Amino acid sequence: MNATSIWDALQAIRNRSPVVHNITNFVVMNTTANALLALGASPVMAHAVEEVEEMVRIAGALVINIGTLSPPWVRAMFMAAQEAKRRNIPIVLDPVGAGATSYRTRTGRELIDALSPEIIRGNASEILALYGGDTTTKGVDSTVGAPDAVGAAERLNRTYGSVICISGERDFVLDSQRIIEISGGGTMMTRVTGLGCTATALCGAFAAVTRDYAEACAQAMSIMKIAGQVAIQKAQGPGSLQVGFLDALYTMSYDTIYRHLQTLEQPRQR
Amino acid sequence: MNATSIWDALQAIRNRSPVVHNITNFVVMNTTANALLALGASPVMAHAVEEVEEMVRIAGALVINIGTLSPPWVRAMFMAAQEAKRRNIPIVLDPVGAGATSYRTRTGRELIDALSPEIIRGNASEILALYGGDTTTKGVDSTVGAPDAVGAAERLNRTYGSVICISGERDFVLDSQRIIEISGGGTMMTRVTGLGCTATALCGAFAAVTRDYAEACAQAMSIMKIAGQVAIQKAQGPGSLQVGFLDALYTMSYDTIYRHLQTLEQPRQR
Amino acid sequence: MNATSIWDALQAIRNRSPVVHNITNFVVMNTTANALLALGASPVMAHAVEEVEEMVRIAGALVINIGTLSPPWVRAMFMAAQEAKRRNIPIVLDPVGAGATSYRTRTGRELIDALSPEIIRGNASEILALYGGDTTTKGVDSTVGAPDAVGAAERLNRTYGSVICISGERDFVLDSQRIIEISGGGTMMTRVTGLGCTATALCGAFAAVTRDYAEACAQAMSIMKIAGQVAIQKAQGPGSLQVGFLDALYTMSYDTIYRHLQTLEQPRQR
Repeated sequence: MNATSIWDALQAIRNRSPVVHNITNFVVMNTTANALLALGASPVMAHAVEEVEEMVRIAGALVINIGTLSPPWVRAMFMAAQEAKRRNIPIVLDPVGAGATSYRTRTGRELIDALSPEIIRGNASEILALYGGDTTTKGVDSTVGAPDAVGAAERLNRTYGSVICISGERDFVLDSQRIIEISGGGTMMTRVTGLGCTATALCGAFAAVTRDYAEACAQAMSIMKIAGQVAIQKAQGPGSLQVGFLDALYTMSYDTIYRHLQTLEQPRQR
Repeated sequence: MNATSIWDALQAIRNRSPVVHNITNFVVMNTTANALLALGASPVMAHAVEEVEEMVRIAGALVINIGTLSPPWVRAMFMAAQEAKRRNIPIVLDPVGAGATSYRTRTGRELIDALSPEIIRGNASEILALYGGDTTTKGVDSTVGAPDAVGAAERLNRTYGSVICISGERDFVLDSQRIIEISGGGTMMTRVTGLGCTATALCGAFAAVTRDYAEACAQAMSIMKIAGQVAIQKAQGPGSLQVGFLDALYTMSYDTIYRHLQTLEQPRQR
Repeated sequence: MNATSIWDALQAIRNRSPVVHNITNFVVMNTTANALLALGASPVMAHAVEEVEEMVRIAGALVINIGTLSPPWVRAMFMAAQEAKRRNIPIVLDPVGAGATSYRTRTGRELIDALSPEIIRGNASEILALYGGDTTTKGVDSTVGAPDAVGAAERLNRTYGSVICISGERDFVLDSQRIIEISGGGTMMTRVTGLGCTATALCGAFAAVTRDYAEACAQAMSIMKIAGQVAIQKAQGPGSLQVGFLDALYTMSYDTIYRHLQTLEQPRQR
């Protein structure tokens, strides 16, 4: 991965404006819709079993996020995801809060078992919880660092074939061949709700234009870190950070990507 | 319509602070509540069948938006709208995503059939879908320009008596006598989620104080364009645009309306 | 209460980052999550009966807000609150819109009857409605001033033992021994949706670290007023006010608290 590949993918998103169908949580719907729009994609939110299959058919990617789940929403997630599978539309799963309650852990695992999502993005506690490892969480925040979940992520990848992204101070994106490490951003980003969910939504947008899903995921995570860094430079706190983050996504240029990328990534071969 | 009529209506909203009852989608609830407050109205959101009839009775307008619909919400929309009809409270409908799924198209049409809303505001694809025209959409974004839907809008108006607003780069507001064209704003506004829904909500606020609903709708759409233009001048992207948009609604003065209005409108007689 | 006590509590929140479990309304979920994060707490939103009991067990406080209620959410509120009671986790209730519909008034009263929340925070109309006083509301906005509800608040406190906070231009926080009056903030704050709900959420964060709940509530309300004043100084309207408010929570220092506190509070003994 390099600045050119990220830039080309971003240009593809801006030109094609792929529809990203989100079945996500109430807290972040507005945030992630705005981030997708600022990036250049075309977000749609729909959660009724009466329409999710039809809606996902016009989408370039399906993003499923279990952050405020309940049984009717879970049914819609399965329906949409099954239709996406049938049509080779990539599925990105965000197992928000897996490990915090057994309902979330179970739902996250059932979705993975049934659907082998193309990409799974979570924090370290969530990734550990999905694989059945003993873990503690603090609600929706991780209590362990991303490196601690690399083993679980590798096992998840081997079992389901999914690209796994563990996000944190350092992000790890891995598939069977590669592990890509992306550092950067800043701790102020942890004081804005829904930036993890936003990362997942952006993975959807990149997966709609980049068929190598590990690459797509790493592109999205890099853009998150770069936009975060740009925004933090001007931010007085998490309020102005959010505003600047959307502005940075919208104005993202090749130069900005190139300049920041040096500091972010250490791709590693296995 | 002229600056004085818009200004008088805005002053009426600020002085009376009419309650606008919204049954709307999860993505934009916060955005539209904030826009209504910045304008001077008093928004309330309530969607339970247990209370919508009682709530709508204290409202100056009812705004129905099908952006994230599901059966219990649809039931509440009908209940609230029927009560609004009985009490001559104007109903504004936003058929978000009509044409994208048959569930949305059908629900939009059923609401119109049963309730003849005083105002219907949608993008061109949505207006075409409501009249049964062949159309394609891209989720919740239109694939055709507003002028292409003027014919369908005229037919909708003839059948149901509703004022129809087709929004886009140029907005068209029409009833049986007039067609008012409002241009302005800027493309950056399409990169903020919920500005269409916000326009619909503002139509509700203006309909609560202006009994000529075509006039009310054109006032709301003009204020949208003016606030958008003011905000775009200072915006670095869609994040700061949103912030500036709310600030512009709140600080909107007669001078600002007057100055911008020249560039916005070409009222036409039929 | 003095600057040192507020500062110490704020430091405790920042250091321990208590989980605050919110079962709240759709309009403000994002806003209150962001405010809790900016303050230093760890918000979680969960509303499914399948998981609320488990989720509340890891929380330092439970915040219940009836702003967009419906029967399944009400069931979850009771379940979570009963579990919180069993585990001595403080419950903060926001009876949004009590008085506006009988469903809200009844639900608010039933929650109080069953659960004697540690803190109840509402505007004057809501507090009056909870005690059965004759009141009118304007949807979710009060039609009377906070001082008019002090009598009802005292009776609520005597009956249920709850700390009562009536918010308005002046806030009143009272228990059986004290009544604390906090003035400040500014009217522009009434043009931002969810700042009342945010106050309630911050009460939860302070209640998680301060066992004297009247003190905790007054700390939260003081921080609201101070952050509001800091933000208003730089705001051009309610859009920039929201941004500045989150920034002010995040950067809140002892000096800022000390400087503003003089103007805010007139503690009174009964």
